[in-house]
Amino acid sequence: MSFQLPSYNSPDFTSQSLVEAPAATLVAVLDNGLAPDNFHATSNHPEYVKVTDGRWLLAPESRMDGVIVVDGDVLVVKEPRSILKGEQVVVGRSDNGEEGILVHVDGFMQQTTTESDKFAFRTRGTRETPFSRSYDELYELLCHERQHGYIAWVLGPAAAFDRDSRAAMQGLIEKGFCHALLAGNALATHDLEAALYGTGLGQDIYNQKLHAHGHYNHLDVLNKVRRVGSIAQAIKELEITDGIMYACEQQKIPYVLAGSIRDDGPLFEVIGDSYQAQDAMRVHARKATTVITIATQLHSIAFGNMTPSYKVMANGQVRPVYFYIVDITEFSADKLANRGSAQAQAILTNGQDFIVNLWNNLKG
Amino acid sequence: MSFQLPSYNSPDFTSQSLVEAPAATLVAVLDNGLAPDNFHATSNHPEYVKVTDGRWLLAPESRMDGVIVVDGDVLVVKEPRSILKGEQVVVGRSDNGEEGILVHVDGFMQQTTTESDKFAFRTRGTRETPFSRSYDELYELLCHERQHGYIAWVLGPAAAFDRDSRAAMQGLIEKGFCHALLAGNALATHDLEAALYGTGLGQDIYNQKLHAHGHYNHLDVLNKVRRVGSIAQAIKELEITDGIMYACEQQKIPYVLAGSIRDDGPLFEVIGDSYQAQDAMRVHARKATTVITIATQLHSIAFGNMTPSYKVMANGQVRPVYFYIVDITEFSADKLANRGSAQAQAILTNGQDFIVNLWNNLKG
Amino acid sequence: MSFQLPSYNSPDFTSQSLVEAPAATLVAVLDNGLAPDNFHATSNHPEYVKVTDGRWLLAPESRMDGVIVVDGDVLVVKEPRSILKGEQVVVGRSDNGEEGILVHVDGFMQQTTTESDKFAFRTRGTRETPFSRSYDELYELLCHERQHGYIAWVLGPAAAFDRDSRAAMQGLIEKGFCHALLAGNALATHDLEAALYGTGLGQDIYNQKLHAHGHYNHLDVLNKVRRVGSIAQAIKELEITDGIMYACEQQKIPYVLAGSIRDDGPLFEVIGDSYQAQDAMRVHARKATTVITIATQLHSIAFGNMTPSYKVMANGQVRPVYFYIVDITEFSADKLANRGSAQAQAILTNGQDFIVNLWNNLKG
Amino acid sequence: MSFQLPSYNSPDFTSQSLVEAPAATLVAVLDNGLAPDNFHATSNHPEYVKVTDGRWLLAPESRMDGVIVVDGDVLVVKEPRSILKGEQVVVGRSDNGEEGILVHVDGFMQQTTTESDKFAFRTRGTRETPFSRSYDELYELLCHERQHGYIAWVLGPAAAFDRDSRAAMQGLIEKGFCHALLAGNALATHDLEAALYGTGLGQDIYNQKLHAHGHYNHLDVLNKVRRVGSIAQAIKELEITDGIMYACEQQKIPYVLAGSIRDDGPLFEVIGDSYQAQDAMRVHARKATTVITIATQLHSIAFGNMTPSYKVMANGQVRPVYFYIVDITEFSADKLANRGSAQAQAILTNGQDFIVNLWNNLKG
Repeated sequence: MSFQLPSYNSPDFTSQSLVEAPAATLVAVLDNGLAPDNFHATSNHPEYVKVTDGRWLLAPESRMDGVIVVDGDVLVVKEPRSILKGEQVVVGRSDNGEEGILVHVDGFMQQTTTESDKFAFRTRGTRETPFSRSYDELYELLCHERQHGYIAWVLGPAAAFDRDSRAAMQGLIEKGFCHALLAGNALATHDLEAALYGTGLGQDIYNQKLHAHGHYNHLDVLNKVRRVGSIAQAIKELEITDGIMYACEQQKIPYVLAGSIRDDGPLFEVIGDSYQAQDAMRVHARKATTVITIATQLHSIAFGNMTPSYKVMANGQVRPVYFYIVDITEFSADKLANRGSAQAQAILTNGQDFIVNLWNNLKG
Repeated sequence: MSFQLPSYNSPDFTSQSLVEAPAATLVAVLDNGLAPDNFHATSNHPEYVKVTDGRWLLAPESRMDGVIVVDGDVLVVKEPRSILKGEQVVVGRSDNGEEGILVHVDGFMQQTTTESDKFAFRTRGTRETPFSRSYDELYELLCHERQHGYIAWVLGPAAAFDRDSRAAMQGLIEKGFCHALLAGNALATHDLEAALYGTGLGQDIYNQKLHAHGHYNHLDVLNKVRRVGSIAQAIKELEITDGIMYACEQQKIPYVLAGSIRDDGPLFEVIGDSYQAQDAMRVHARKATTVITIATQLHSIAFGNMTPSYKVMANGQVRPVYFYIVDITEFSADKLANRGSAQAQAILTNGQDFIVNLWNNLKG
Repeated sequence: MSFQLPSYNSPDFTSQSLVEAPAATLVAVLDNGLAPDNFHATSNHPEYVKVTDGRWLLAPESRMDGVIVVDGDVLVVKEPRSILKGEQVVVGRSDNGEEGILVHVDGFMQQTTTESDKFAFRTRGTRETPFSRSYDELYELLCHERQHGYIAWVLGPAAAFDRDSRAAMQGLIEKGFCHALLAGNALATHDLEAALYGTGLGQDIYNQKLHAHGHYNHLDVLNKVRRVGSIAQAIKELEITDGIMYACEQQKIPYVLAGSIRDDGPLFEVIGDSYQAQDAMRVHARKATTVITIATQLHSIAFGNMTPSYKVMANGQVRPVYFYIVDITEFSADKLANRGSAQAQAILTNGQDFIVNLWNNLKG
Repeated sequence: MSFQLPSYNSPDFTSQSLVEAPAATLVAVLDNGLAPDNFHATSNHPEYVKVTDGRWLLAPESRMDGVIVVDGDVLVVKEPRSILKGEQVVVGRSDNGEEGILVHVDGFMQQTTTESDKFAFRTRGTRETPFSRSYDELYELLCHERQHGYIAWVLGPAAAFDRDSRAAMQGLIEKGFCHALLAGNALATHDLEAALYGTGLGQDIYNQKLHAHGHYNHLDVLNKVRRVGSIAQAIKELEITDGIMYACEQQKIPYVLAGSIRDDGPLFEVIGDSYQAQDAMRVHARKATTVITIATQLHSIAFGNMTPSYKVMANGQVRPVYFYIVDITEFSADKLANRGSAQAQAILTNGQDFIVNLWNNLKG
């Protein structure tokens, strides 16, 4: 059975309360990066704003904690730091239309019986939750998205520490299951170290042995790649023929490497400024239809914040954006939910096994 | 490449210190279950005792924290609670032969350069350690052991909570990769609930849905199986045709279900007395050549305590006993090591994925 | 401000549906330990059964997953394994009175606005949840319960591994903050080892140093205490003057040590049979008004299963039973909730710090 | 007993091998930020370089993975990215003097018996390790360092989520126990939110309640502080009178707020560029004599990388730098060690309790 996108239930704009709702109030920004009092902040749900001609406009390319700038017929969701003096910003914090703002939380809800037992076991997701169907659905979803969607991967450095997971990730990229890669300096550096030395931070990515003076491998790969000037050039000159960065370069998959205070090097592609990095990441968050984050709490939450739970397609159709967090701890999944991405589905396991599982089921 | 058992390096009994070592001192037990002062406690390493005729005898079927009873030419390693009045017990706590006791820690050590860097990354095993080779070695090992060894599985209840891992475990048993199963009341009960209702504690083992009044499934399965009198009888009468317990019964694989204070029911096969359960478990610890424990800290440590790091084969050959602990937390692996099973290899992941991985690679 | 027990809101038995509800159906038990079809299983909430004269009786001394035996005017909640042939058992699984059974889930609910935001951060409890008020409330609660309640402690072995937490626990017992102790062989053994050798499993409980041959301390203390025949006798003969077991013996605080397959020894007080241990534990679960479980997943869940969320006092008043789980992982708290004890409050920290905090605030 | 700094054992430069060792080879940097082949990378241990006149110079203000630039008599340890064209860099990767480089790993080792048992429990540090002495030593250490050292705190955001830990941290700063604060945008923002609204991301920092529309508190505090232009100004204009940032401002304690891709806002003090942030952090790493990191894996590792294990005092004396990592998981402590900071001492608990403990013992 192949994957079917669920249909979207629009709000009922003929309901009396929405018909009678006022247009949203707009207030001009007084200074760059400073919002007016009572500004409306977006959630990751679909949000509609009533404009003066009575229409309800859906915010496309939304995000969590953004500000809605109204520019004629167009709603632009911006980070508060990016709003400009003079822009017209939606104000109001009610979300049922009272102030011309409607937050629509159940656009993709399926008809389910809402009865719940007074007493039940296993109401919380943990490592003991069964993930068989999560995997099966994900296989189908990825096959669909490969052609019809935009799959963004957010990878922690550990993905490159293991031979099999690194090879599996390479395979997934080469087979078209990755449209964008979001990561940090460490992932790229460890991946290139694996290509050149067979190690990650000096540890053999297959047999776990610590190579003698292995910590130099990490530093040498950074120095060598910086010398030739770019990852792309390093792949040529250093004759790199495998790995995650290799696959991205060969397949022309865009990647964003965001800098962090933990970085050595860094590689020249890394965006040192955190807010420029956010902007570069959001380019992909706007396009994403499926997001998979693996073993990286910081990047998961960062990307989760900027990814809406829905996407307006070119034909106007509204579809869900799928968000999977793969992590070995309940805490990481809970923290993502606690930062607002409650719709994210958690798969609690070691990212190595997860990537290998995907590859084994999708390579065929 | 197929699996090769490493050879065993016996101690050099011609060395002067061992030649001159005295015979071990024996003291008679004064009361059942009470050891003499200064009794020698066994480790999980091979241990030799010098007897009065000058020979060094190797303790077969040893365990951690056991007491060595000398009965003529035979060394019997017993739990302290099991020693009997009048038995002759080895005393002495030095371990280099000074008192006729030799603990041999490097019988299976390979020649390795012992140089270590003054500075190194990644000296500790964590979830970020690469496990590719651990898996590959384990596949080879299990293929060898299926025919030539004795593979004991120690399963936490979560193995039965997921459709795919439960089916994979069934497959592994049916294909001969399991010679004994050690578990508790919960594993068997959840497995039978899955067979009868498709749930584990009321949660669908495939799609995660909580069935209405699903917590009754757990209680009903216990009641039903207790009514018919046994697991074997329940499989017949309730027409159970899949699962872990089903496979054990069909394949005549022995299992020990040890009771715990958390049990409902219990199933009648469960051994309620903890020390009788230990005795039943040790029957398999004595035979085991490979142990795999999954997602159960209590049972892992219990079985780890009673499993030596070596086994004396029928032909007198000494071989290592492999011990894998599969758990999602560093703490569980560390705790097993902290309770003495330092030789255990940890694979840090969700047990569901681990079992499915094994099956995917071994079913062929 | 001193502690105030919340008042209990009884169900409205004058409501039409409850007035018209039938009396509960009773079915006789056919065989010891085997429940009739469709038996009603108790939750940890207050549950009422309508008897033939039209009265609704509240099950006193209830527990999770118990069976209600009706004996004239008395409801007795039993474990299914303990019901006897001929006893009259309540059947029926609806819980709003339709079959004469009413499960009352909001007896202690406070009037709260039920509005919830469409979007919120921090809806899940984690290690980042603030615990300041949890502590403050607990201090007040314990001061109240010392005189008016029954405080049961469920301790994992680690409580005895640290000098300060062990001394703090001793202090809490001596000051009257503990009416019963539930634990295992390990807690008692480690505590006695600390008294005799200053170590826990060979590690100094203050400075973390591993004593030479320290693992013998553990075995020797077991052997010594077993020789003198009891913990009480060992305290006298071995001149033990501090620790948790010492305090229990001096203060005549009852304790239950439940056996497990991980035990060495065991101490003679340990109840080896898991189900006899359950019965001994439930004696205290019936009395408990506040339960604190620390760093022991197995015992937490076991005791949680047998502790109702309410208690009927001698004067007929219904009061809540407070249940705190103190553990360092979200998983343990979630697992307790997943096994039905959803009302348990989690404090996520190291049990050592928790006990010391309590003592620092209660000793004065 | 008050705190005593351990004395430093210099290498024996009169030993033949060191006397005969050659001077280190220096190679000129060809391009900014690019190291020569075979460059020597520093560890966090004291490292000596032999210069052409035969003296061994100690690298002051060292760090992990730095490059040693020799400028006449002065060794300057720089990040590879910061070396400039023409600078003379030490090359060579042996560390016993063979190439004029000596890495001195046991300058502070105490005389200890190195015998180790063949078999021991509890060789790994976990949550079950006793921390009583760690606390006691830390209290003494901090009292010493308040006057004679430089205490740097590296705080994760959770420190501000709890009323008591936030107040305790304020107290520690006000009493002189903090000479520098390293953190991110989140800590400062949450702390200011607590001051203005009593919440952290909308959750009450005392009673855990989610305030209605509470997620706006977070966004509003950012907007308000940005409007007035600075944290210092916000404290005045918004009449903030408590908290961590308040205490830093009042006590003139320097702080570095490093940007991250997860940031909202950010506050204007936050350094968005990761490498400028590293440079600002290293100013304090050079001065630090004691470092305490709490509940922040990223910042712990980042600061750990730039903090040497020793410090050369103004009078030439060499003393250890103490480094404590306080975290609730073994993984974080292991990861810090795996990234080279093996000397860090872990205290495994909730940071809230840790800070409160410190304050309770140091406030007096």
